[in-house]
Amino acid sequence: MKKNILVIPGDGIGPEVTQWGKAVLEQIAASFDHEFLFDEALMGHAAIEATGTPLPDDTLEKAKKSDAILFGAVGHAKYDNDPSLKVRPEQGLLKIRKELGLYANLRPILLFDELLNASSIKAHILRGTNILFFRELTGDVYFGEKTRSEDKNTASDLMIYHKYEVERIAHKAYEAAMQRGRKLCSVDKANVLESSRLWRETVQEIAKQYPEVETQHLFVDNAAMQLIKDPKQFDVVLTANLFGDILTDEASQIAGSMGMLASASVGDGTGFFEPIHGSAHDITGKDLANPLASILSAALMLEISFGLKEEAQLIISAVDSVLKDGYRTSDIADDTTSPYKVLGTQDMGKLVLK
Amino acid sequence: MKKNILVIPGDGIGPEVTQWGKAVLEQIAASFDHEFLFDEALMGHAAIEATGTPLPDDTLEKAKKSDAILFGAVGHAKYDNDPSLKVRPEQGLLKIRKELGLYANLRPILLFDELLNASSIKAHILRGTNILFFRELTGDVYFGEKTRSEDKNTASDLMIYHKYEVERIAHKAYEAAMQRGRKLCSVDKANVLESSRLWRETVQEIAKQYPEVETQHLFVDNAAMQLIKDPKQFDVVLTANLFGDILTDEASQIAGSMGMLASASVGDGTGFFEPIHGSAHDITGKDLANPLASILSAALMLEISFGLKEEAQLIISAVDSVLKDGYRTSDIADDTTSPYKVLGTQDMGKLVLK
Ligand SMILES: CC(C)[C@H](C(=O)O)[C@@H](O)C(=O)O
Ligand SMILES: CC(C)[C@H](C(=O)O)[C@@H](O)C(=O)O
Repeated sequence: MKKNILVIPGDGIGPEVTQWGKAVLEQIAASFDHEFLFDEALMGHAAIEATGTPLPDDTLEKAKKSDAILFGAVGHAKYDNDPSLKVRPEQGLLKIRKELGLYANLRPILLFDELLNASSIKAHILRGTNILFFRELTGDVYFGEKTRSEDKNTASDLMIYHKYEVERIAHKAYEAAMQRGRKLCSVDKANVLESSRLWRETVQEIAKQYPEVETQHLFVDNAAMQLIKDPKQFDVVLTANLFGDILTDEASQIAGSMGMLASASVGDGTGFFEPIHGSAHDITGKDLANPLASILSAALMLEISFGLKEEAQLIISAVDSVLKDGYRTSDIADDTTSPYKVLGTQDMGKLVLK
Repeated sequence: MKKNILVIPGDGIGPEVTQWGKAVLEQIAASFDHEFLFDEALMGHAAIEATGTPLPDDTLEKAKKSDAILFGAVGHAKYDNDPSLKVRPEQGLLKIRKELGLYANLRPILLFDELLNASSIKAHILRGTNILFFRELTGDVYFGEKTRSEDKNTASDLMIYHKYEVERIAHKAYEAAMQRGRKLCSVDKANVLESSRLWRETVQEIAKQYPEVETQHLFVDNAAMQLIKDPKQFDVVLTANLFGDILTDEASQIAGSMGMLASASVGDGTGFFEPIHGSAHDITGKDLANPLASILSAALMLEISFGLKEEAQLIISAVDSVLKDGYRTSDIADDTTSPYKVLGTQDMGKLVLK
């Protein structure tokens, strides 16, 4: 198989971790006789520094032409500390999601047995958890009109949904549920928000087309609670952009660490694969970041964009066996029940390659 | 002390639990020689059934005239299942918050030692946690303009903040932080939302007036994760209406159960005290609800609205000793490390009274 892969390392720990996702892809290509051609492009703070814009045209063009994209993270403390800056790294990420039509963000909560004790949540609560989040990614308050009054004292963002936006991701989520546990939980705030009422009505309609799937509707506050109280109750979780942002970060604690979770953004254009963690300026350049989320993002790419299930499974097994051998990066070294060896980014990356 | 207290039981388990909050207030009045005069009023589904509107004028008038309000919960499955209904129980709650100017919702995460093992989170992660949430309560996407297109296919809610709304609650939160651990964490999504950028700028300004308080800003997705990963890091958490709704329900798992958490809404008008749990139709009328959140809401009322610290402390001690004696309602009977006696709503209420 011959594929063009665009690597966008981005900011902070992005480059450190993405090099290992890429290295794993190269190794898979060598072992399975695929031809993966890599190109690289700028986004976020890195792109602002080099070109003045967070998503240069060149990056977008390359993205549209490639077969899949491996992305790191964007963001920088400078912008977080100064809310008045107009050009911001995150705009690059939001724009590429929109331009490529990546309306469905899949976030599987993959639980490695070895990490059951690394979580702040009790092992018996976690055991057996297997959740696949479908987060809507190109609508909601992320993309609605933003205003700031002339006197600067009033600011707004429009939370808005169109029916077709809910329908297309609902279909994807139901199709996935059919292949899994046949349970789907749709999360909204329909007791308060009109956009959530449209969301709920639409999901109720689509649900009728999948009678084999058991549908549940939860308010987002309740869902945030249930996720921690009893995560095993969930199979597929379908939700809007903002709620999905919050709930999936929260759910990262189920997997032991945000440093373990990969995500796939799909829709009309090139598939986009990234860790769910951010740029983490505080640990950048210190060889502390966990490269496993990027490595698992590479596995998602192989499975989802290229249909290479065997290759994807091999990567997951490699990660599993490194964890079984007791190796941990510091973010997942919180297990007081067994001894382990703590590694930096580089060594962890090398071990998985082996 | 002579006070007029309005009781609004509301829907679902509201009446069952509120009777115990009220009973405890009566007992305190008798023991400490206060005169508490009680009146009752309708809100939510109960009010819609009786009068056609979720907040009758009569209720609002009584609320304005009373010295404090003890509230239960509103909501009903009928409306949750039919998003197209125009008159909804929650509108009553939102309207009374707005009409009374209750812009600050205080949600203390009160941790009883005896419940350390009842949580899905590990005891050593929880021990020592003491968080006070300040949730903004009369602004945000809750109150911004809602639209639905004529063809019904597009729906929106305006997420909007005015600077003065952020300022007044920020002052309250900083003042509380000064009396506590002198740490304040403001939660927003300033990397994406304009209203959050106004929020962050404003909090940064107010922070300068409280140099003794250490201020931190977190993005809401990160905050949702950190709350579970390491709750001890937080002292006062300040956030917007929607984010506060989600984060405080999530944080209820720190206290073992939503059935343990009380909240106080204050601002310009009569103080309003309620459990953070909802109407819970599924367990209504089954003598299963935990009355402790309502009882602890009564304690918050005594302390915050009437300045009766000793009386409030007595209630908390009574709850503590009932828990120490091994009594639990079923929601907090999840502790596998020690034996306990499971009680219904009524028996638990009676025990605390004793
Ligand atoms: C960086 C930020 C804009 C982004 C988001 O909120 O979508 C991130 O948190 C994510 O979840 O991918
Ligand atoms: C019932 C609902 C409108 C309400 C809210 O979202 O504010 C509730 O969840 C709460 O937190 O008090």
